[in-house]
Order: sequence, then C-alpha cells, then structure tokens
Amino acid sequence: MPTVHTVAEHLEEEVAAPLIHALRPVLGSGGELGSRAGVPCDSWRLAVEAYNKRDWKTVPAECESYVGHYMLGEQYRRDSRVVVDEAIAYAQSLKLAGNGKDVWVFDIDETSLSNLPYYATHGFGYDVVTFMHAFLKSRPYNATSFNGYVLDGSAPALPETKRLFKKLVSLGIKPVFLTGRTEDQRAITVKNLRRQGYSGWEKLLLKPLGVKVAAVAYKSGERQKLQDAGYVIVGNIGDQWSDILGAPEGARTFKLPDPMYYIG
Amino acid sequence: MPTVHTVAEHLEEEVAAPLIHALRPVLGSGGELGSRAGVPCDSWRLAVEAYNKRDWKTVPAECESYVGHYMLGEQYRRDSRVVVDEAIAYAQSLKLAGNGKDVWVFDIDETSLSNLPYYATHGFGYDVVTFMHAFLKSRPYNATSFNGYVLDGSAPALPETKRLFKKLVSLGIKPVFLTGRTEDQRAITVKNLRRQGYSGWEKLLLKPLGVKVAAVAYKSGERQKLQDAGYVIVGNIGDQWSDILGAPEGARTFKLPDPMYYIG
Repeated sequence: MPTVHTVAEHLEEEVAAPLIHALRPVLGSGGELGSRAGVPCDSWRLAVEAYNKRDWKTVPAECESYVGHYMLGEQYRRDSRVVVDEAIAYAQSLKLAGNGKDVWVFDIDETSLSNLPYYATHGFGYDVVTFMHAFLKSRPYNATSFNGYVLDGSAPALPETKRLFKKLVSLGIKPVFLTGRTEDQRAITVKNLRRQGYSGWEKLLLKPLGVKVAAVAYKSGERQKLQDAGYVIVGNIGDQWSDILGAPEGARTFKLPDPMYYIG
Repeated sequence: MPTVHTVAEHLEEEVAAPLIHALRPVLGSGGELGSRAGVPCDSWRLAVEAYNKRDWKTVPAECESYVGHYMLGEQYRRDSRVVVDEAIAYAQSLKLAGNGKDVWVFDIDETSLSNLPYYATHGFGYDVVTFMHAFLKSRPYNATSFNGYVLDGSAPALPETKRLFKKLVSLGIKPVFLTGRTEDQRAITVKNLRRQGYSGWEKLLLKPLGVKVAAVAYKSGERQKLQDAGYVIVGNIGDQWSDILGAPEGARTFKLPDPMYYIG
C-alpha cells in the first residue's frame, strides 16, 4: 500500500471532526441517500453483506458519506446487535462436551476491536490515492498511519462482540482470537484487548511475520490446527467473509457488518 | 402444512388489497419502522440476507408490514438490480470454453418467477396459523392455495433475473433451471416461463415426486450430476442460501433478496 502524506494529513485536524458531526443528525442511518446520488448505497451495502459483491477495492465514491453515517449512526450498532443476539441464542442452545475443548473463534479488527476512530478521520474505505485530486477531503488507506493507530493500543471494543465474548466465557465456551495482525503486534494487541475488558481467552493466534497467504487460506489452516489439537469449534465470528469461509468453518458462523473494506 | 380456510379466506377480498395499497405511500422502503415497534426489521432483514438468521419459520410479527413494504416498494427491485449488475459483470469477465457446456443455474420461485401476487394477498411470510386468533388480518401459508397459484401459471418474471438470463444466453452461457417444484408441475412451469419471456434454457430440473430430501442436499446433488455430465457451472443464482450452498456450488454464487420465507 502506498503511503500518502502531504495534503490529506495536513487537512486532518481541521476537517475530520466537523465533517462527521455535522452530518450525523441530518440522515441517521443513511437510508436511501445513495439512490439520489446515482449509486444505491443501501443496495451496495446489502450486496457486500450477502457476499454478492466480492473483491472490491474501495467504497464507491458516492457512498463514502453514506458509509460514514452508517458506521457512526445507530444502524451499525443495531445490525451488530441482531447478529450477536442470534449468536447468543445459538450458543445457549448447544449441548457442550464440557471438557474445556469447546472454542469460539473471534476475529479482532472490526469484530472484537473497532478501528472506527481511525477510519473516521482517515476516510471510510474510499481510496483517495486514486481520486485525491478530485476529492481532497477524503483520506487514503495508509498502512503506515494505520499501523501507528494499532500500535497505540487504543482501539475500543465493539460492545456487542464483547457481550457475546463474556456470555460465551460464562457458558464455558473458550474464545480463541484469530487475526491477520502479525506476531510483532502481540504485546500491544494483548494490552489493547485487556484495556477494553476482554479476558479469559484460550489463545491469541497472530500471523507469523513474512507469511504471504490469503486470509481464507491462512485462517482456515489455523482452524484446522485447532481441530487437530482436539478443539471443537462451535462458533466463528468475523466482519469479513474470509473470516468464516473455508473448511473447517466452525459449526456455525456469524458475519458482522463491515461496509468499510474488503479482505479476500 | 395445514390448510386453513374459514376466517382468513373469508377476509381475503375485503382486506388484502386495501391493506397493501394504503400502506405503500406512507413508508416507502420501510426504513427504520421496525425499530420503533421493538424489533429492528431492517437489521432482521440484513441478518437473513447475510445468513446470520437461519431456520426461521416466519417473519417476526412486527415486521410483516415492513416486509410487505420492502417487497412492494422500490428497494426490493433496487437490491435485486445491484445483484444482477454484479452477476452480469462477472459473466462478461469470463473466458468461456465455448463448447456449449458452460451453464448457469437458476432457481425458479422468487428467482426467475415471482410469487409476490400470492403473498401480497396471503400475507408476507407471517404464520397466521399460530397467531390467527390475535391477528386476523394476516394470511396463512397455505400449501393448497399456493399450489393453486402455481398451477395457474401466471407468476410474473422477476425483471432483473430475466435481464440476467437473456444476457447469459447472448454470451453463450446456457441457463439450467433447478427448482424444488415437482415433476408434476412441469407443463405449467414451462408454460409460465415461456409466457413470461424465458426461452433457450438447456434444462429444467424438477424434483421427482416423493423425494424427501432437504433443499441443500437435493440441489447440490443435481449440480453434481450436471458436472458429471460434463457441464461447467460458471454461476448459480437463487433467493435462498439453500440454492447456493453445498458443493459443487458453481464457480460464483449470487443471493437474491427474499425476506418472505426460509427454505433450509
């Protein structure tokens, strides 16, 4: 990923906060805004969540503010709540082995921890590298600056996921984190998770440095290792389809919303 | 399925049409209506489409009118259009074998033909058998009466699916219908499809009478037979997850919206 400084970074303090807060009361969940602009952003988001849209690189330009409103408004939380309610109902219905080998796989970014504070100031998935000359107010995905955010260890918990996590622990199902974050980020990731109230996980599986493999292959491989070690994956939750596709998927999978970016 | 006559049928003429038409202009796509009523119907629908909700029997009582508005308003069509646009873009990107063996699997009900005229007068997925004493205005799922609708052969085409169908034929990809409709409905199904402008399909695969097997198993088995016969399933489209899950799924799958009912 290219690193983009200059104009976007210069504008960061002065534009980001007012942009978001000024828009929030106008639209709430975003509704049909997109259809007026030519791209039906609500339909685009549905297509993303139902895995009809795949391999997309950026949020459509017309939908950047729609996605921002969605993420910062009530609908993202409400959509997540329904998913977690379903996950908890499922977990409560399980007959567990009770031998400490029942696990539930959690992704981290946009599942257990939210990077919304980063994207809210750097743009909602809209690739400004391509369109920078036209839309200076948008921010690029900037790997260096995103790593800086991760290393700060300040990402907030997603409250609905934390509710699920705690419920599972109380039921005797052990959480296993499985993330595309790399091994060198272990210490800060542990610190961030603890700060946010996560505790009692069985494993934290980070990607070894230098491993170049697609997310589906990497994560399904790690789940296979869990099974080989005698664990039973009773559930699996993530914000990307690549978190939950690829055998062994886990007995039941849950897709949290994420219209900001796509990882294949 | 039980057959329910009496009160619901008695009410049919006098209530059904005004119920729907009176509500349409008030709400459009339905938006956040459900959240006011206690159940977030927009989040419920998203959970259905993203396969987070499974094995549901009926639309939640509070969401019946939301689902009705969704289906009869513009959003259903818009959501379908985005899926079909994606399917066409995918089809156009394919390098085909050109040997007449490239096929695309189409489900029929709520994919190629719409049963909306039936559900619009019989209730949107809300099981009145259970709640009849409380909500007399809703209609039951009534297998006898639904079969009557099917045998009438008047189901309209879903316009977006028909657009995809015709595009695929023009590209040299042969459509194969694969449906849970039974063999005894072949003649009327062919007639209905032709009346609605479908032509040039390679096969119409109906379920043999008396076969009792879940949709996923039945349909994946039929796709396997297609592959064994030398066909390459380049795409697969349906309104149910059971249309598109189960190996061999097809090289790419597309899920059309359907918040009215669930087939496992």
